[in-house]
Amino acid sequence: MSDEPSLSNTSDDETALRAVTMHRPRWGDPTTPADLPAAAAALAGADAVADTGVDPDAVVLAEPVVPEAVRTALVKLLGASNVSADHRDRIDHTRGYSTTDLLTLRGGDGSDAPDLVVAPANHDDVVRLLELCAHHRVAVVPFTGGTSVVGGLTPQRAGFAGVVSVDLHRLDQLVEVDEISRTATLQAGLRGVRAEELLRANGFTLGHFPQSYAGAGIGGYAATRSAGQSSAGYGRFDEMVEHLVLATPRGTVEFGTAPRSAAGPDLRHLVLGSEGAFGIITEVTVRIHPTPTRRVFEGWRFADFDAGAAALRRLAQDGPMPTVLRLSDEVETAINLADPDDLGGDTGGCLAVVGYEGAAAEVDRRRDATTEVLGQAGGTYAGTEPGQAWRAGRFRAPYLRDPLLDAGVLVETLETVTYWSRLAEVKAAVTDAVTTTLADLGTEPLVMCHISHVYAAGASLYFTVVCPQTANPIEQWAAAKAAANTAIRASGASITHHHGVGRDHRDTYHDEIGTLAVEALRAVKRTLDPDGVCNPGILL
Amino acid sequence: MSDEPSLSNTSDDETALRAVTMHRPRWGDPTTPADLPAAAAALAGADAVADTGVDPDAVVLAEPVVPEAVRTALVKLLGASNVSADHRDRIDHTRGYSTTDLLTLRGGDGSDAPDLVVAPANHDDVVRLLELCAHHRVAVVPFTGGTSVVGGLTPQRAGFAGVVSVDLHRLDQLVEVDEISRTATLQAGLRGVRAEELLRANGFTLGHFPQSYAGAGIGGYAATRSAGQSSAGYGRFDEMVEHLVLATPRGTVEFGTAPRSAAGPDLRHLVLGSEGAFGIITEVTVRIHPTPTRRVFEGWRFADFDAGAAALRRLAQDGPMPTVLRLSDEVETAINLADPDDLGGDTGGCLAVVGYEGAAAEVDRRRDATTEVLGQAGGTYAGTEPGQAWRAGRFRAPYLRDPLLDAGVLVETLETVTYWSRLAEVKAAVTDAVTTTLADLGTEPLVMCHISHVYAAGASLYFTVVCPQTANPIEQWAAAKAAANTAIRASGASITHHHGVGRDHRDTYHDEIGTLAVEALRAVKRTLDPDGVCNPGILL
Repeated sequence: MSDEPSLSNTSDDETALRAVTMHRPRWGDPTTPADLPAAAAALAGADAVADTGVDPDAVVLAEPVVPEAVRTALVKLLGASNVSADHRDRIDHTRGYSTTDLLTLRGGDGSDAPDLVVAPANHDDVVRLLELCAHHRVAVVPFTGGTSVVGGLTPQRAGFAGVVSVDLHRLDQLVEVDEISRTATLQAGLRGVRAEELLRANGFTLGHFPQSYAGAGIGGYAATRSAGQSSAGYGRFDEMVEHLVLATPRGTVEFGTAPRSAAGPDLRHLVLGSEGAFGIITEVTVRIHPTPTRRVFEGWRFADFDAGAAALRRLAQDGPMPTVLRLSDEVETAINLADPDDLGGDTGGCLAVVGYEGAAAEVDRRRDATTEVLGQAGGTYAGTEPGQAWRAGRFRAPYLRDPLLDAGVLVETLETVTYWSRLAEVKAAVTDAVTTTLADLGTEPLVMCHISHVYAAGASLYFTVVCPQTANPIEQWAAAKAAANTAIRASGASITHHHGVGRDHRDTYHDEIGTLAVEALRAVKRTLDPDGVCNPGILL
Repeated sequence: MSDEPSLSNTSDDETALRAVTMHRPRWGDPTTPADLPAAAAALAGADAVADTGVDPDAVVLAEPVVPEAVRTALVKLLGASNVSADHRDRIDHTRGYSTTDLLTLRGGDGSDAPDLVVAPANHDDVVRLLELCAHHRVAVVPFTGGTSVVGGLTPQRAGFAGVVSVDLHRLDQLVEVDEISRTATLQAGLRGVRAEELLRANGFTLGHFPQSYAGAGIGGYAATRSAGQSSAGYGRFDEMVEHLVLATPRGTVEFGTAPRSAAGPDLRHLVLGSEGAFGIITEVTVRIHPTPTRRVFEGWRFADFDAGAAALRRLAQDGPMPTVLRLSDEVETAINLADPDDLGGDTGGCLAVVGYEGAAAEVDRRRDATTEVLGQAGGTYAGTEPGQAWRAGRFRAPYLRDPLLDAGVLVETLETVTYWSRLAEVKAAVTDAVTTTLADLGTEPLVMCHISHVYAAGASLYFTVVCPQTANPIEQWAAAKAAANTAIRASGASITHHHGVGRDHRDTYHDEIGTLAVEALRAVKRTLDPDGVCNPGILL
């Protein structure tokens, strides 16, 4: 198979993509057409229609309430051009990109807008502004790409003298590349796309490509334990971080003296996933990899989801591991392949996407071994076209949500992770909970699911839910999501595999880790952030 | 190379080894002869001599000071046979197995003996006894194998109404094997050897074989982030743990709902490496692997340490990874191969041990690819004999210390971990610091070093130091160790790769992580252990 002429079937498109500064409420680059493709239009029962949301300029925002003394001090610290109360700046730092966030802003509700948006130039600026905000009890929200889908940018206002969004875009340096240790030190405000550009210029890749790649940034990856679509090959972001620097209202903390020290608890993991609750991550040192010279993305067919899952499990447990490994269930496979010509007219069964990146010989070796395993496990090779199609479209999905919402369609995703032995049970329980709840509201949904990430002991499940909107789609989704959360916890799975906790998952998260663990985290927060100004209401 | 008839060159000897209940102060099974081998005798300038330590029965212990009410309550809770103030029981739970520990007990100093040794039957017993001890301010030391070499079993006595050693040997069950998810749930008191026996009976291996394997236990592995000699293949213990249960004076905490959840900070890593400071780990769920059907251990020669390190780095960064991967420096290579017949008369250069375990075809494939890389990197295949010799003797090294001490020789080890780019500098700095310090005391040492574990970004360095004893060998080693600690920190490395913090590394550890991080850990401790009775003085 490694003799095929078309082997490197995909270009280096991660750096071809432009980093996008999102302008809320719509996703992504406004110059990128977001036409509804045929399959999505069919789902919506409509062609694309005009933007039905309120004009962002028309959203009425409250007067900024941050005390004048704080604003003056921030201007003195950062310069007037880096402290903004401009309407569009505030809107563009309001909430994230969950469907609820989109619906809220589309509906003209800007009540969660920060009072000020500030842009520190460096780590010391961040420490100083945290000290200042703590002193005046002003809440602080870290902002890199602003792509949270769990309310990570929607802090609690009650009890605070205002909310400041700290946009880290000026912390955008590749500080150091250690070619011997294969590590790079990146500032937290670097957007993922820009980090990749800078690393590729040095002959390396970070290999981190979440669906939010066009918007998200390094600090956000670290603060939320981002997974990335290539986690099978490059690892999750939390696995890549060797060292990190955290600015807190009480000063600087650094973790990760050396790779795999056994000196006490691994405190990197106290900061990774802390979602701004303990302070603001300003810099990380991460593992990097030589830029791949060969990339192959291909499709494999399985008779059903269980057969496909068993094949993925075999790879995750006994190897070899491709760079990307995903499996759509029957429903998602049928929808994604709505044009039957894509796969010889056969839309049955389940499609897996298997991708390889690396040095040419190594890719060939790994692909040959993987091919053998997948064949033995009942898979049928489906050529490179499904892999290429997936890779070409993989950052496009978020663009579809806006025209679907315009067309009166509710669309949202949710995800979880569990042990292999419980996977089928969790999938069924979540599907049933969401379906029943929405059907009871009169809007029978389509629930698609795929395995997005695999590990030796388990795998993630990523659900996409589509149905007609009711008169109150925010409440409609809240009901479905609550039912999903209950099903997830009842079946012993975790409330999130990679979306994070934010505000949306906070209560379920507390249930998941238990009272004593929540108390321990609060004790850490009190130590680093005694005034509680760091992203209040998020996580804790 | 995979056609060699002698391929599986080693037997399944990890379960042939007997789990040993150590009787202090000497290491290991008293029926195992600990004759000084020729090389060690030559180092000592002496043949083995008789035990020169004080008879343990003659060590004078203080009267147990635990309040009678506590003892009565513990007897009521656990039964009289599980609460002991017996002289030998107390001695056998005194300190660990550092050279300082051995010298202290050999010198008749039993001042660190616990007042009582108790043996709970289950998790609930542990919670109850922690509540009881907290109420009466009695310090509690968790004990599985008792093989700490950093003072992890030597709590602070001041301010406490006594010290109780909690021996977990009755928590010795393999609770569950999940064959689908490839996980096993193990009670913390299971010794490593016994856990391996139970898993092999189910067709699996844990793959965790630290040098302390004959003595150490599951709870200790978890509490200290044990590495294990096969970490290249099976991972470190902290990487294996999917779920854990911690008993604290305030109740039970469980972490790890699902593999790779992103729900907040990964709190498993707050407990792994906590060394008993937050409570007692009673159960872990760990990843397991099918029992290997093929094992190959072999030697590779390199011109010098730098060339060997570069070869190991290439495997760690680009793969494939053997199961075991180690490299002795020139000094250690010469000593280990003191019988030149072992390697065709050539004792120059550096010897690497490379081991493979797994399914036969997979081992062959991995070995072929590794062979190619090592050859390209300048290595010379040295046959299977050096690998077999290392594997056969790998749990024997701790046995040599006692006869060497008897013969007036000081011998101790220390270890660190750093980035690849700093490896040579750290190695030179530590070697120089130890050599200079001991030479200044009139005892020029032999300092051997090996890379014991490799990672993508860095590697560990494990030093063995041998020299004649001065009149006060405890102070002699303390001086050398202090110099090594200073050199390690000055060169940016971590104070420990796998020995842990205990009491011995505590101050250096606090310097390494910084004041705010220490405060955060203390805040966690205050939450889970408000009376501070859990292994006081250890870690914090």
